[in-house]
Amino acid sequence: MLVVMKVDASDTEIEAVCAAIRGLGYEPHSMPGEQRTAVCITGNKGPVDKDRLSQLEGVREVIPVSKPYKLVSLETKNERTIVDVRGEPIGGQVLTLIAGPCSVETEDRTMAIAEGLCGMGVKFFRAGAYKPRTSPYAFQGLEEEGLRILAKVRDELGLRIVTEVLSEETLSAVAEVADVLQIGARNMQNTALLKKVGKCTLPVLLKRGASATLEELLMAGEYIMAGGNHQVVFCERGIRAFGDHVRNTLDVSAIAAVKELSHLPVLGDPSHAAGKRNLVPPLARAAVAAGADGLLIEVHTDPSTAWSDGAQTLELGVFQRLAEELRRYRETFGPAPSETHAS
Amino acid sequence: MLVVMKVDASDTEIEAVCAAIRGLGYEPHSMPGEQRTAVCITGNKGPVDKDRLSQLEGVREVIPVSKPYKLVSLETKNERTIVDVRGEPIGGQVLTLIAGPCSVETEDRTMAIAEGLCGMGVKFFRAGAYKPRTSPYAFQGLEEEGLRILAKVRDELGLRIVTEVLSEETLSAVAEVADVLQIGARNMQNTALLKKVGKCTLPVLLKRGASATLEELLMAGEYIMAGGNHQVVFCERGIRAFGDHVRNTLDVSAIAAVKELSHLPVLGDPSHAAGKRNLVPPLARAAVAAGADGLLIEVHTDPSTAWSDGAQTLELGVFQRLAEELRRYRETFGPAPSETHAS
Amino acid sequence: MLVVMKVDASDTEIEAVCAAIRGLGYEPHSMPGEQRTAVCITGNKGPVDKDRLSQLEGVREVIPVSKPYKLVSLETKNERTIVDVRGEPIGGQVLTLIAGPCSVETEDRTMAIAEGLCGMGVKFFRAGAYKPRTSPYAFQGLEEEGLRILAKVRDELGLRIVTEVLSEETLSAVAEVADVLQIGARNMQNTALLKKVGKCTLPVLLKRGASATLEELLMAGEYIMAGGNHQVVFCERGIRAFGDHVRNTLDVSAIAAVKELSHLPVLGDPSHAAGKRNLVPPLARAAVAAGADGLLIEVHTDPSTAWSDGAQTLELGVFQRLAEELRRYRETFGPAPSETHAS
Amino acid sequence: MLVVMKVDASDTEIEAVCAAIRGLGYEPHSMPGEQRTAVCITGNKGPVDKDRLSQLEGVREVIPVSKPYKLVSLETKNERTIVDVRGEPIGGQVLTLIAGPCSVETEDRTMAIAEGLCGMGVKFFRAGAYKPRTSPYAFQGLEEEGLRILAKVRDELGLRIVTEVLSEETLSAVAEVADVLQIGARNMQNTALLKKVGKCTLPVLLKRGASATLEELLMAGEYIMAGGNHQVVFCERGIRAFGDHVRNTLDVSAIAAVKELSHLPVLGDPSHAAGKRNLVPPLARAAVAAGADGLLIEVHTDPSTAWSDGAQTLELGVFQRLAEELRRYRETFGPAPSETHAS
Repeated sequence: MLVVMKVDASDTEIEAVCAAIRGLGYEPHSMPGEQRTAVCITGNKGPVDKDRLSQLEGVREVIPVSKPYKLVSLETKNERTIVDVRGEPIGGQVLTLIAGPCSVETEDRTMAIAEGLCGMGVKFFRAGAYKPRTSPYAFQGLEEEGLRILAKVRDELGLRIVTEVLSEETLSAVAEVADVLQIGARNMQNTALLKKVGKCTLPVLLKRGASATLEELLMAGEYIMAGGNHQVVFCERGIRAFGDHVRNTLDVSAIAAVKELSHLPVLGDPSHAAGKRNLVPPLARAAVAAGADGLLIEVHTDPSTAWSDGAQTLELGVFQRLAEELRRYRETFGPAPSETHAS
Repeated sequence: MLVVMKVDASDTEIEAVCAAIRGLGYEPHSMPGEQRTAVCITGNKGPVDKDRLSQLEGVREVIPVSKPYKLVSLETKNERTIVDVRGEPIGGQVLTLIAGPCSVETEDRTMAIAEGLCGMGVKFFRAGAYKPRTSPYAFQGLEEEGLRILAKVRDELGLRIVTEVLSEETLSAVAEVADVLQIGARNMQNTALLKKVGKCTLPVLLKRGASATLEELLMAGEYIMAGGNHQVVFCERGIRAFGDHVRNTLDVSAIAAVKELSHLPVLGDPSHAAGKRNLVPPLARAAVAAGADGLLIEVHTDPSTAWSDGAQTLELGVFQRLAEELRRYRETFGPAPSETHAS
Repeated sequence: MLVVMKVDASDTEIEAVCAAIRGLGYEPHSMPGEQRTAVCITGNKGPVDKDRLSQLEGVREVIPVSKPYKLVSLETKNERTIVDVRGEPIGGQVLTLIAGPCSVETEDRTMAIAEGLCGMGVKFFRAGAYKPRTSPYAFQGLEEEGLRILAKVRDELGLRIVTEVLSEETLSAVAEVADVLQIGARNMQNTALLKKVGKCTLPVLLKRGASATLEELLMAGEYIMAGGNHQVVFCERGIRAFGDHVRNTLDVSAIAAVKELSHLPVLGDPSHAAGKRNLVPPLARAAVAAGADGLLIEVHTDPSTAWSDGAQTLELGVFQRLAEELRRYRETFGPAPSETHAS
Repeated sequence: MLVVMKVDASDTEIEAVCAAIRGLGYEPHSMPGEQRTAVCITGNKGPVDKDRLSQLEGVREVIPVSKPYKLVSLETKNERTIVDVRGEPIGGQVLTLIAGPCSVETEDRTMAIAEGLCGMGVKFFRAGAYKPRTSPYAFQGLEEEGLRILAKVRDELGLRIVTEVLSEETLSAVAEVADVLQIGARNMQNTALLKKVGKCTLPVLLKRGASATLEELLMAGEYIMAGGNHQVVFCERGIRAFGDHVRNTLDVSAIAAVKELSHLPVLGDPSHAAGKRNLVPPLARAAVAAGADGLLIEVHTDPSTAWSDGAQTLELGVFQRLAEELRRYRETFGPAPSETHAS
């Protein structure tokens, strides 16, 4: 932590800052510069409370030096985490493809999609039984009936189920069916829910909020890990920016940067970023090229009649060609950690 | 709803769009233009599902015409709602000031602040018993003990309590103490919580999410009203933008625009927007000048020792001078609905 | 400047950083912390080149401490600048209103607007002879003919002319007519033009770019002052954010923050921010309440036939009522420097 | 164009809108809906002036249907443009790599970098003789001396020179040396400069402004094409968003979307987006995977002593490995137009 004094800060004010630092149990180091004085702090084991110091007379700015996240940090655990989902990895050499419709639909339609994906070697099935919708009048998901259908997909086809949990109250019901609990972008800072999934034994797929900084994303992961659940997978699904050519702006640099900051796996979600089908393949390729450990993609046997998000959903055959291309890319070029290229 | 065809769309494609519209129970009106054809839709009572049509061959774009919100809309109810909180209004002629510390602190400190505010004629007390923090290691609020202290503030001083509810599970406990349930920016799209407060009989103060469009904010209010709770108050507390001179960018135009779109009251929160004390008074003035029905402001007897958000908290005496100025402004200039000035 | 080392930085790496700092002529101060070492730099008279140090082995981050702007800074000149425009001030006690149509139109129409404004006591007339338009096919302004009409407004009515300069080549022609040279948001970082107006003797009204940070805005002002022209007036006209309820998001906090950082005057432009007439009055009030030294407002005798920006242009009578209200506000409450309220 | 009336618009108001449309020479089609009336416009050859109609009584919103760009549009010219630069293509099957230092440095250093790149088969050399810097006190480029050195690179090594033009006044000098004129992000809406390069015979590399929408980018290209210069190449270099993990957020979806909207080539600039070296390779891969026709990359023999932007500059050897990987990717997977995959 560095406390930057105003140009006209008096000696008394500087001394008061040093005294306050000592009062917090740390050691101040006053550094008089040509224009102004800065006071460095040492001796702190964790983050120093910035607020206390920033309010003292004569202080211009307080600049934190340490990052606030620990458990998620690659500096803490200098080894890539591979999350195991009933024998299938997320992270490491393999490119993980998680595919399926936006919502669970009828049993027949859902099974048809799941069988199609199974036949292509997909191991993870995504579909929402509980849907977070902007409008209260929009379809909110099949709820319990949706969970029943997902259980059937899991039991009959062996697919690993990735499905969103929207509420503390339905968490236990969802957890009985899910292999991976998904926290959506809208709930990334729903701390009550984060604490609760932190007590679960299932892996958690945590989507980045539409305007979350990387630090906020990593701290949301820290909430889950601090609760005892160390199986966290991040997912970049596009941020809210000013452009109107996509639904959300896929921030591929976030994928690369999370790989530099954290040992946890990170996925990309090109479907929610694109918002329209044509842009899904290029965004999928870009996410993988940026270093994503896998993708979440919306796929349907008949996207034009999908119950939600149809416009951004790929038809099964299109997905198959894309999946083959992406796997071939991964085999040819590897997971490409930026470290090996940039040093 | 307007379906815009591609320049090279064939007659067959146009006819297929018309047929699909008829299939949805509406009436298509094909409008051949110089460059391309557009198809207007009439006969719909509510929003048309955009996704179905946007995926048809030859369609370039689907443009919605109607807004999706109803109950919150000034077009639906052309009369300003005044929310009554135990005899004190939010909305209408009066400027509502909701003040207090960020967090409930010790009983003594909290009572001291509350008494100070009471003495200035403030009717609403804000303080969090449950705090949503970015870090799991930061102070999370006094929780039940905080609620007990708030009950004392309410019972002994008569102040109306505005406090945040973070979780479905603690809602009933919070509701026993609160006069107004606050939904924070991080939970604006926590639909499970929105549905739940929609079933409560207490007024709800709904803060705009950091990257929520006005439509999303209004739709979040619609969730609450659709549940049966019509006492909703919006609050603009700053959006996430690229600037680093404030914590959040107070979007005063949102205040003015909500007044044009909705009959519900809207407040401003200059404290969370500013992030530092010096900028709170100018932002408070700007919010009121833009037409806010009131303000949420963090106030403390000794901000430099506040348990959270101290840097943006006003000292009681500073708040008093500001409050007097703002009330004088309101008496002089009135609530200034933009309608009266712009026509 | 503070150089933050990685957790696992070696002593050799730290020593190399210190050596590099000494090589730049400054003094390094190594500060070993619990987790990592930071190296403070003293002895520098101006900003240190961040790039050189950030690339050394073992360095995690380089954090600048000093601000890069000097001449525009309130720390450099601790006295408010009042820009004099032929006897009329911008800055200080008076609220400056700069009004007129978006574009110069026919001589008759332009004179009619100018006379109307003159009759209300307005001293500054704004209208573009050269217009920066998004489309090459849109009206680009009357150009030389527009300048001739502006000269007539100036000579016959005595109004001070504020008009935009778009190009190095037309600068001298514009400067013959203008009392204040306006640099538009699109050209805020057109450094060639900034350098050129820095050599002029006319005051410059510098609009904030749609995505400029305050530091970039201040540095653009620094370009002009460094050229020798110290009569700079900033103008906040809205930033590009994700919202679609306005054309640009008026950042009133920028107005208040510029007043804290710089001695130069700052105006607000509610017309370009709002993008529609109804929202202009509330944004105008908010800008003044946040501390703006004045406003730029689009006004026309008949907005519905204005040649450009008609939708956001106020009719003369509406403007008159607003102007009276704003002047009354200013007389009642003063320029309200945040300092007096927040300390 | 579609004019949406307010819910309570009167028949007289609707008729006035129709009359106004007829007055503009177009044909109105009134479409009464359940809630409100919309009026479609046909008969227009180009964009209708939105402003005139949006101001009429009873109008809620005016929604444009046609896009304002023509010459750049893939709907106008349904064939990919390949820009020829002295025999080397930009666009088409080949991946174009444009590499070199941020600024032209001394003749020796610049020649050394250029020779290194030449040896790797690079055909395009980038380096700025005129630099747009945020600070007036930062190095502004070697200017004429820089042009002389670039001419030497061109003449001795045959490299095609891509260099930025900052000013109308230096355009002719730059054009004598450059093979491709670069317009930087800060000048994307410097319409005076756009018009001037529109009269040149050299290809223009047009960078997207930090907060430009795709429509604004395409319209800036339209300015150049409307002037007669049809050799325009777009470049995505990152947008300004809220994140602090990169200098600019590389919007790979813009690359894919420009390919869908325009026939012109589009490049990516991972260096300015990343802002730091480690993230350049993943962003380079992502841009190519999203469909970019090539890349602009900052490369230096000794980045740690580069005169500007060193932190984001790749060392020659690192660049070579990256370039080989990217070329191999392109050979394996092709230019991957999204069309072939998404239909």
